[in-house]
Amino acid sequence: MWNVGIIGATGYTGIVLISSLLIHSDVKITLVTSNTYRGKKISDIFPALKGVFENILEPTEEKHAGKCDVYFLCLPHGSSMETAKELYDGKAVIIDLSADFRFENVATYEKTYVPHTAKELISHAVFGLPELYRDRIRRAHLIGNPGCYPTSAILALYPLLKERILADDIFIDSKSGVSGAGRETKLGSMFCEVSEGFRAYNVGVHRHEPEIQKEVSKFSDAKISFVPHLLPMNRGILTTAYGKLKKPLSTQDVLTIYKETYQDEPFVRIFDEGLYPDTGFVRYSNYCDIGLKVFDDGRIVLISAIDNLVKGASGQAVQNMNIALGLNETKGLERIPQYP
Amino acid sequence: MWNVGIIGATGYTGIVLISSLLIHSDVKITLVTSNTYRGKKISDIFPALKGVFENILEPTEEKHAGKCDVYFLCLPHGSSMETAKELYDGKAVIIDLSADFRFENVATYEKTYVPHTAKELISHAVFGLPELYRDRIRRAHLIGNPGCYPTSAILALYPLLKERILADDIFIDSKSGVSGAGRETKLGSMFCEVSEGFRAYNVGVHRHEPEIQKEVSKFSDAKISFVPHLLPMNRGILTTAYGKLKKPLSTQDVLTIYKETYQDEPFVRIFDEGLYPDTGFVRYSNYCDIGLKVFDDGRIVLISAIDNLVKGASGQAVQNMNIALGLNETKGLERIPQYP
Amino acid sequence: MWNVGIIGATGYTGIVLISSLLIHSDVKITLVTSNTYRGKKISDIFPALKGVFENILEPTEEKHAGKCDVYFLCLPHGSSMETAKELYDGKAVIIDLSADFRFENVATYEKTYVPHTAKELISHAVFGLPELYRDRIRRAHLIGNPGCYPTSAILALYPLLKERILADDIFIDSKSGVSGAGRETKLGSMFCEVSEGFRAYNVGVHRHEPEIQKEVSKFSDAKISFVPHLLPMNRGILTTAYGKLKKPLSTQDVLTIYKETYQDEPFVRIFDEGLYPDTGFVRYSNYCDIGLKVFDDGRIVLISAIDNLVKGASGQAVQNMNIALGLNETKGLERIPQYP
Amino acid sequence: MWNVGIIGATGYTGIVLISSLLIHSDVKITLVTSNTYRGKKISDIFPALKGVFENILEPTEEKHAGKCDVYFLCLPHGSSMETAKELYDGKAVIIDLSADFRFENVATYEKTYVPHTAKELISHAVFGLPELYRDRIRRAHLIGNPGCYPTSAILALYPLLKERILADDIFIDSKSGVSGAGRETKLGSMFCEVSEGFRAYNVGVHRHEPEIQKEVSKFSDAKISFVPHLLPMNRGILTTAYGKLKKPLSTQDVLTIYKETYQDEPFVRIFDEGLYPDTGFVRYSNYCDIGLKVFDDGRIVLISAIDNLVKGASGQAVQNMNIALGLNETKGLERIPQYP
Repeated sequence: MWNVGIIGATGYTGIVLISSLLIHSDVKITLVTSNTYRGKKISDIFPALKGVFENILEPTEEKHAGKCDVYFLCLPHGSSMETAKELYDGKAVIIDLSADFRFENVATYEKTYVPHTAKELISHAVFGLPELYRDRIRRAHLIGNPGCYPTSAILALYPLLKERILADDIFIDSKSGVSGAGRETKLGSMFCEVSEGFRAYNVGVHRHEPEIQKEVSKFSDAKISFVPHLLPMNRGILTTAYGKLKKPLSTQDVLTIYKETYQDEPFVRIFDEGLYPDTGFVRYSNYCDIGLKVFDDGRIVLISAIDNLVKGASGQAVQNMNIALGLNETKGLERIPQYP
Repeated sequence: MWNVGIIGATGYTGIVLISSLLIHSDVKITLVTSNTYRGKKISDIFPALKGVFENILEPTEEKHAGKCDVYFLCLPHGSSMETAKELYDGKAVIIDLSADFRFENVATYEKTYVPHTAKELISHAVFGLPELYRDRIRRAHLIGNPGCYPTSAILALYPLLKERILADDIFIDSKSGVSGAGRETKLGSMFCEVSEGFRAYNVGVHRHEPEIQKEVSKFSDAKISFVPHLLPMNRGILTTAYGKLKKPLSTQDVLTIYKETYQDEPFVRIFDEGLYPDTGFVRYSNYCDIGLKVFDDGRIVLISAIDNLVKGASGQAVQNMNIALGLNETKGLERIPQYP
Repeated sequence: MWNVGIIGATGYTGIVLISSLLIHSDVKITLVTSNTYRGKKISDIFPALKGVFENILEPTEEKHAGKCDVYFLCLPHGSSMETAKELYDGKAVIIDLSADFRFENVATYEKTYVPHTAKELISHAVFGLPELYRDRIRRAHLIGNPGCYPTSAILALYPLLKERILADDIFIDSKSGVSGAGRETKLGSMFCEVSEGFRAYNVGVHRHEPEIQKEVSKFSDAKISFVPHLLPMNRGILTTAYGKLKKPLSTQDVLTIYKETYQDEPFVRIFDEGLYPDTGFVRYSNYCDIGLKVFDDGRIVLISAIDNLVKGASGQAVQNMNIALGLNETKGLERIPQYP
Repeated sequence: MWNVGIIGATGYTGIVLISSLLIHSDVKITLVTSNTYRGKKISDIFPALKGVFENILEPTEEKHAGKCDVYFLCLPHGSSMETAKELYDGKAVIIDLSADFRFENVATYEKTYVPHTAKELISHAVFGLPELYRDRIRRAHLIGNPGCYPTSAILALYPLLKERILADDIFIDSKSGVSGAGRETKLGSMFCEVSEGFRAYNVGVHRHEPEIQKEVSKFSDAKISFVPHLLPMNRGILTTAYGKLKKPLSTQDVLTIYKETYQDEPFVRIFDEGLYPDTGFVRYSNYCDIGLKVFDDGRIVLISAIDNLVKGASGQAVQNMNIALGLNETKGLERIPQYP
């Protein structure tokens, strides 16, 4: 039994982690923290947990090093790196859900976010996308859990990138449910500002663009354009990516590449020709569903769907924990997509 | 390992049963049927099940007696009784999700629904509300699984009824998500007819009124008035019931009665004074949450929340199965409420 | 042409007022104010108004007396009374959308809200519910525009109250869309906290209960119990009220009373037996729809629907302005309900 | 006063037409038809119209030629052309909301839809997009009202096409609310199949692709790829189009082109740099809002928003009627966008 701590447990990634870890038979949540709600029961913050999990929230800013085998950091970027510095000892597994350890290139990080104050840890960190970096995650003690949009985009593009058959212009049109904006109150996340409306935001300036670009650049000179949109729903990301193939391949040909690439992946499902993902089919699960179509002139459209809080955040974090601890990778993630 | 069949598996109760039974380690789904989609994989109907559960749908109308230890009947009333007749052998456990075996009094059933063609089975049937009839369910081979509204209303009223302290006029104002209307296409369930709207329907003539009344009448002369409403959301029922206490009791007094009545119940949660249920707190779980307030003049308002497809249908059916088979009552129902 | 000012124009009641007044051919909006957004164009706050109405927001706290013929106060209670004191001169028509001038009885107001600092104006104020107080509104220079829940509840009960045929226990179960909570950011109005959920709130302690009660008490000794609920949608209130008739009347009898009571009302529609209101049928309009059913034992259920921001706030305010200025009562309110 | 008939009035385009025409002071609706609901009052079908417009529905299949000055055909493709044949006399103005008269090239139509049985009328028909074809619409007696997606896509692309500065690969990623699928009951439009989900559909095979392509081809050799998606909301289309500029222009340069192109258009609004459309800002109005951004390498993203039932269907049809009759183009379309 591994002891697990969740630092910053009262946001949406916190409760989704909890709901996954509570059904995981190899771990026990022994620490939950919150500065805002310190001293309260977490079930007072999330009544859904009443009678299920009622631990007291400890202050985030206290020293927690040495208490747990695994720490999930659900903190804003900037504070996450500070906490990681304090907790990192090369023994515990630290899984950071912020952006602080997703970038090998500190300059890219600093241009996109803030000055990095834990640079000495960056070389220890692994980008926690199991489908690409499982082997490195196995040995990691510091995992930068990928962003939600990057997860959906990179998994959609990866097989083509790997085969180096995608031309240089890639357009990524992503749409996310509101929970992606977190649980902080802000006008743009208010019900009446979102419901019955749909909009693009941060066009060409979203922080997830460099995160996607850095992975694309490992395989290709392609430059992406990324446009995120806000869906009037709670959970789910659908990414529709557009590009052009460098050589003539049919939809079936490309589907074969995708099926082979992901054949051993427990959480990637490739749809047959003519079928396309719906975020409703992955809701509350750790799946990433992918469908695609090749047009006559070599253009290709790739469509992927994830639950932004599961495969796009907390579920992937649990998957990373399982890999790092050598556990069955699907433990705690057995949830069937909930439908309707 | 018990073999389980789901007769009529392609509606919403079907998929919710499947998603519960697939994580239940003591049972195996060996039979799923559908007349409409016979011969197809169930994952073709529900892509959410792709890679998870892809059994072929057999025709509903075939003979299935003797194949399974447990049958869940997810059929319309009227056809359910016919299938029950064919399957009933006093050995298999038959759990009927239609209304056909919820009424001991055949006249009430026939007045509300259709002529009953399996009257000989009625005396074998148990009303499958575990909080009231667990002992009888233990020995049952035919269980009439309660309706969604009745589950929410009866659990809200029962402790007061049992104590015989509720006066004779009871008003039950219930609100249900759209999944309660099933998966058949109809104008009233279309997105644009429901979204951004709210209405009462079947005022005073809803079929669940006699089902609630028959349980109330076991304890009281009270007559209920029942008004259902349609909520613009997928899942959840909130029932707000209004009545008057026969003797002077405080909110705390009544809460104590509720906590005692339900103290051993794994799926009933009583909220403290000043806190009230939200369907969002029970979403995708088998919980029934209850809160209440007593006013100065003895009036009382009772509020209960369930997920209509779980505690209001398929989850309760699994709970009944667990009781009837002598299994751990929470097996397959460990899901934490999913939030947000 | 009358000059109109909107004090506090950047909330939801503000924009709904604007969208109504802009199509009103007898008035001109000459003043819009906001402390938060002073100096900006109102179309910067509400891009929906781009190219339509781009006036600059003046500071709310400046002196605006003498500038306009009509002032709509869209301010929080407490500040509204202060502004009213400054603007009131017995000539301009002041329509206050806060609660500050809804109560003749200052003690009731102060018990429910805050100390009243403009008591000298209370005797000048008229409760702006045209269906009950049209004659007084005609001569008024200070109008306390009713709350959204009270509008829906009082219009539903009034014909029975007026006829003094309603028994003493009245239960009012109301459900409101999220815009009723205003445009201030708060956790409880966030999309993910509301969507796919439904809850009661402020049970027995909502500030609109004394507002409804004071009107009921003018006709009856009845005491109301009021339970508001939050609907996962933008706009609309449905009120379901339960009571008992003092004498034997059929549904038709009571419908006749309602049709007679409201026969000259331009914005009240009575539904025939068996039909019930849907907030979707009044969306974006100033209508109040009412349906009802009498049960065998004299119990009655009354159902009313309004758009909370129109008949429940800004539309009713425009109706009051029209009456007070002697204009056609439906001017600016000709909008057909928008469906779907 | 012009007499107007709506043939097939009980779908969503029908009621939106009615709600627009009822506030239009130059026209009178003298005919509404429906085969399904013939003999009923239209307010029985749409209770929103109760007390507002209660005309009796006449059978669609009767002879209606000569009765009206303007006919709106809200019929399925295939039947629309038959009715047009019967009504066309070179005097009345016929505005067809189906696809039957949108294509000059009959082969393209027949490949996409069905055999055309009114070919003799095609040369009389004008594609009813006022921003491109206002002069031709002025003299037209048969107007093929554009599809909803094409309206949003063509208006977004037109200024660049006209200037011939757009390179040959164009990707059009469109998202529509559910009302675009009409009022016929079908599984894919059911609340629980749509709510809290998001999906692409008809990828590369949607019937609106050739309609967009034919307009693009008038200016360019570019080939479009069109991917429509279904939004969990009632109304609105947002189109995000991706392409590349043939010459170096800044965002400001391109915005200038857009503002000049549309400077006299009453229903097109161009957003300033850094601001992007939201379907919520055009809800229930006839506006088309457009925003855009040019990237360093000449890539461009164009974003347009319309209400699919107004500018995307019935509102544009009224705009076309106004032009064809020589009326003020904005009559009946003065509605401010309704927000929230």
